[in-house]
Amino acid sequence: MGMKVLRESWPEWKDNTGVRPIRIGQVSVGAGPPIIIAGPCAVESFDQTLEIAEAVRDAGGDMLRGGAFKPRMSPYTFQGLGEKGLEILAKVRDRTGLPIVTEVMDTRYVETVAQYADVLQVGSRNMQNPPLLIEVGKAGKPVLLKRGWAATVEEWLHAAEYVAAQEGNLDIMLCERGIRTFARDEYSRNILDLNVVPALHKRTFLPVIVDPSHGTGDADFVPPLGLAGLAAGADGLIIEVIAEGTERGDVKCDAYQGIRPSVLRKLIADCRQHFGQRKTDAAPV
Amino acid sequence: MGMKVLRESWPEWKDNTGVRPIRIGQVSVGAGPPIIIAGPCAVESFDQTLEIAEAVRDAGGDMLRGGAFKPRMSPYTFQGLGEKGLEILAKVRDRTGLPIVTEVMDTRYVETVAQYADVLQVGSRNMQNPPLLIEVGKAGKPVLLKRGWAATVEEWLHAAEYVAAQEGNLDIMLCERGIRTFARDEYSRNILDLNVVPALHKRTFLPVIVDPSHGTGDADFVPPLGLAGLAAGADGLIIEVIAEGTERGDVKCDAYQGIRPSVLRKLIADCRQHFGQRKTDAAPV
Amino acid sequence: MGMKVLRESWPEWKDNTGVRPIRIGQVSVGAGPPIIIAGPCAVESFDQTLEIAEAVRDAGGDMLRGGAFKPRMSPYTFQGLGEKGLEILAKVRDRTGLPIVTEVMDTRYVETVAQYADVLQVGSRNMQNPPLLIEVGKAGKPVLLKRGWAATVEEWLHAAEYVAAQEGNLDIMLCERGIRTFARDEYSRNILDLNVVPALHKRTFLPVIVDPSHGTGDADFVPPLGLAGLAAGADGLIIEVIAEGTERGDVKCDAYQGIRPSVLRKLIADCRQHFGQRKTDAAPV
Amino acid sequence: MGMKVLRESWPEWKDNTGVRPIRIGQVSVGAGPPIIIAGPCAVESFDQTLEIAEAVRDAGGDMLRGGAFKPRMSPYTFQGLGEKGLEILAKVRDRTGLPIVTEVMDTRYVETVAQYADVLQVGSRNMQNPPLLIEVGKAGKPVLLKRGWAATVEEWLHAAEYVAAQEGNLDIMLCERGIRTFARDEYSRNILDLNVVPALHKRTFLPVIVDPSHGTGDADFVPPLGLAGLAAGADGLIIEVIAEGTERGDVKCDAYQGIRPSVLRKLIADCRQHFGQRKTDAAPV
Repeated sequence: MGMKVLRESWPEWKDNTGVRPIRIGQVSVGAGPPIIIAGPCAVESFDQTLEIAEAVRDAGGDMLRGGAFKPRMSPYTFQGLGEKGLEILAKVRDRTGLPIVTEVMDTRYVETVAQYADVLQVGSRNMQNPPLLIEVGKAGKPVLLKRGWAATVEEWLHAAEYVAAQEGNLDIMLCERGIRTFARDEYSRNILDLNVVPALHKRTFLPVIVDPSHGTGDADFVPPLGLAGLAAGADGLIIEVIAEGTERGDVKCDAYQGIRPSVLRKLIADCRQHFGQRKTDAAPV
Repeated sequence: MGMKVLRESWPEWKDNTGVRPIRIGQVSVGAGPPIIIAGPCAVESFDQTLEIAEAVRDAGGDMLRGGAFKPRMSPYTFQGLGEKGLEILAKVRDRTGLPIVTEVMDTRYVETVAQYADVLQVGSRNMQNPPLLIEVGKAGKPVLLKRGWAATVEEWLHAAEYVAAQEGNLDIMLCERGIRTFARDEYSRNILDLNVVPALHKRTFLPVIVDPSHGTGDADFVPPLGLAGLAAGADGLIIEVIAEGTERGDVKCDAYQGIRPSVLRKLIADCRQHFGQRKTDAAPV
Repeated sequence: MGMKVLRESWPEWKDNTGVRPIRIGQVSVGAGPPIIIAGPCAVESFDQTLEIAEAVRDAGGDMLRGGAFKPRMSPYTFQGLGEKGLEILAKVRDRTGLPIVTEVMDTRYVETVAQYADVLQVGSRNMQNPPLLIEVGKAGKPVLLKRGWAATVEEWLHAAEYVAAQEGNLDIMLCERGIRTFARDEYSRNILDLNVVPALHKRTFLPVIVDPSHGTGDADFVPPLGLAGLAAGADGLIIEVIAEGTERGDVKCDAYQGIRPSVLRKLIADCRQHFGQRKTDAAPV
Repeated sequence: MGMKVLRESWPEWKDNTGVRPIRIGQVSVGAGPPIIIAGPCAVESFDQTLEIAEAVRDAGGDMLRGGAFKPRMSPYTFQGLGEKGLEILAKVRDRTGLPIVTEVMDTRYVETVAQYADVLQVGSRNMQNPPLLIEVGKAGKPVLLKRGWAATVEEWLHAAEYVAAQEGNLDIMLCERGIRTFARDEYSRNILDLNVVPALHKRTFLPVIVDPSHGTGDADFVPPLGLAGLAAGADGLIIEVIAEGTERGDVKCDAYQGIRPSVLRKLIADCRQHFGQRKTDAAPV
């Protein structure tokens, strides 16, 4: 009932690896080693985006993240470059070969964002926005569905069902990005909920991505919590990066959680060492 | 900076009552006794809506609430009658004289909803949806802005600022409807946060409405928590009602939190007895 | 099973008012108008305690609260006067006639505290301390059992059962004092959970006391939230008071949540006006 | 001020590994590879305890955990064998060589428990119990201080300071065991907070132990979350085990979170493979 499409699609996969792989360009999410999605919080310029994208690619990353439409707390902070940001992302994809993950947050722009993006991201604030989920479900692109910061698993899976129910699109990645608890802002912006990783793998075949950047809000915590996410069984990470020479004060959003390319390189190397072989028995896609 | 328009509009009010009244039809919110908004969770039919609206009016209620567009957890539950629901609300307003509060949840429908509604409700799930807040801000109607169930006061006031920043519309009511805590679903769906009532009155001139229906999820708790909301200083209540003869199992949403008209009548009488004279020294609008 | 003694004692009361009255000196808790317990956070000296106690009595308060043993976060802050504090409380009781509520936090001191106190308070930090609950249960005095700040109702009622299970002592008041949520320390130290008031009245015959002082952490919020607690159906309030002439910086604990005697007087007058007659149909004890 | 002893002891260690090693028998916590503490929830009998202890030792575990005094929600469930349980633990230590970690929860029993135990555990419910912390601080034994399930880091470190402040005992391990959030009991009893691991390593030299058993409440989640804890940088794990042939329904406490010895063996092997060499550059103790 509540999870009709997602449940009906489950039987064929349950005897396989438990995760249904999603093909995005050359990348398979949920099959083989975990994927690494990395990039700037927001697309600020072509040069900034290209520099970071090349660093992501050189570090061994699989996909590029970057926001063109940014949902911000205040109306007076940077709201993203909009469609111009999408164009930048597309050019950077041409130069680096990295598929693009970018957020869409308005039903009126789903079609536009889908023309540029390889993966449509639905942000935490919109996880329970039915009209948006419906339009995203119709767009026919893989989806990265972030968990609302106070959403239950039941609510999250029903949000995925909204997407799947439109056209039967099962290419949905669930992204844990930290929950809001009493510990808010004491030592960490959010608390990364890694219990949810095996909990999701028990309930669904959708791949699980962990976002240690938003899940901690602190660049120093990203490597240990990123590794922890994979140790808990996640199928990939999504990570914010700031360019090597950029002052944190000059970054237009999430300035303190972006890691430097050198840190990313070390983190990806650690991931490959420990988790690279984790899924070699997975069926090739 | 963060609260530019709302702060700049504050000085002229701070020596007055502290709350800037909002005129909606014959009703003044924030001046005089607290207002009572009541009605069905969702508009299900003309007859159902009229029956409840007449009961609300006869009980002494000031405005009618009712959802035409419903944000639901599951894609397979009743999603509201949409524009047909708006038409029903308008007809019921003609018959009862009660101004209408109804939710809008998609940027593409703001203009349409604004043609019918007296107050545009932004729901909890959309409190941090900037494109929607921006469109609502442009619509020029009074707004009821529900708090996200894990939103801080800073986030909530910034959401109000998104509305105010478009055209200087200050006719925004802030609606507390329960927060999500560790106590979720043990004895109550949410926990009504009444601490936030004086906290908001310290920080802003916007009127504060309390929703004991969503704030408890239990019809039995609505009268005591509604009275508590007013005792804490709220400028009004918003309450869900189900018709006297309707089986709870037949209601299409929130079946267990709606109170019966007879209970509403008693609750409004208690409100008038205890809080009716609370603001008689307020400046007439 | 889990609630044996408390459940078995329920039948005789369920057709009465729903609350089993507790007699403490001249006061009946749970019968007649709500009771007001007030006093300093900590007993600091005889003069300070007497001054506040007289103010409480003159304002119409029913009992005196005051800590002799204080559970503090830091080992370097004031830990209470210990047994000397108990002696002061007893002398002040002799002078004012007010029964005394004071905390016990160590199994080794239960007997001592019980020699002085009229009501033994078990604090939030000890709500799930079985050895202490057991000793308190054996002491044969009325108990004020504060809720742990992240305790469920099930845990709370079981803590009461620990007390009741020793010698069948049913003279237990349940005290809601604010829960810890994501909103911690933004605009309020804790969030006062008033949903729990009707929830407890549904589940048990034990009287419910609301503590707006700890429940908000802000003296300005104590009157509105205290009134809200009674509107929600509480059987009484417990309130921290600081002397009229004392600088807040000179108070040894909880300096910013104590209200002045003049504020207490107004609050008690409001309570009497609105809630004084609430339970006149209750059976006299 | 607040953290006097712990801060003053910090300088000599900060240029070392950042963690001050604690020697317990042959084990060094915080130096070399992470330690594994494992054993039954409660000591139920000599045979049960010995069987599990031998399994822990054979699997490569470093210490034995087991409760003799159990803080239970209900007064009618198994409360532990008390001093008889301590005697069993001591005999099992003689047979297996494994040092013993066991909880003390009453000031009157600290001396007794300290005669048997190698490490005194202070449980979550007592993290903010000053009299107990003070007595434990005087006992001169290493301490495992569990975090309260709604405790801030500030509160937790101050609890450690209570212990350290008595006699300068710095042999304190901080144990994260899951926090209480809105997600309580949906898919997991608690949420294991791994953000706190690097946060603690930034603030103190005390070793950090992760408890995936209480942190999840589900045996299936213990291996992934245990590995995640070490990936986040923890200095060790504490894990509940049930004997291979025991029915879960026959276990006297925490029946669904204990893992089988075969699962423990695999988990420890994985830990050694990935994290065994993590601290080889640490100074030998």
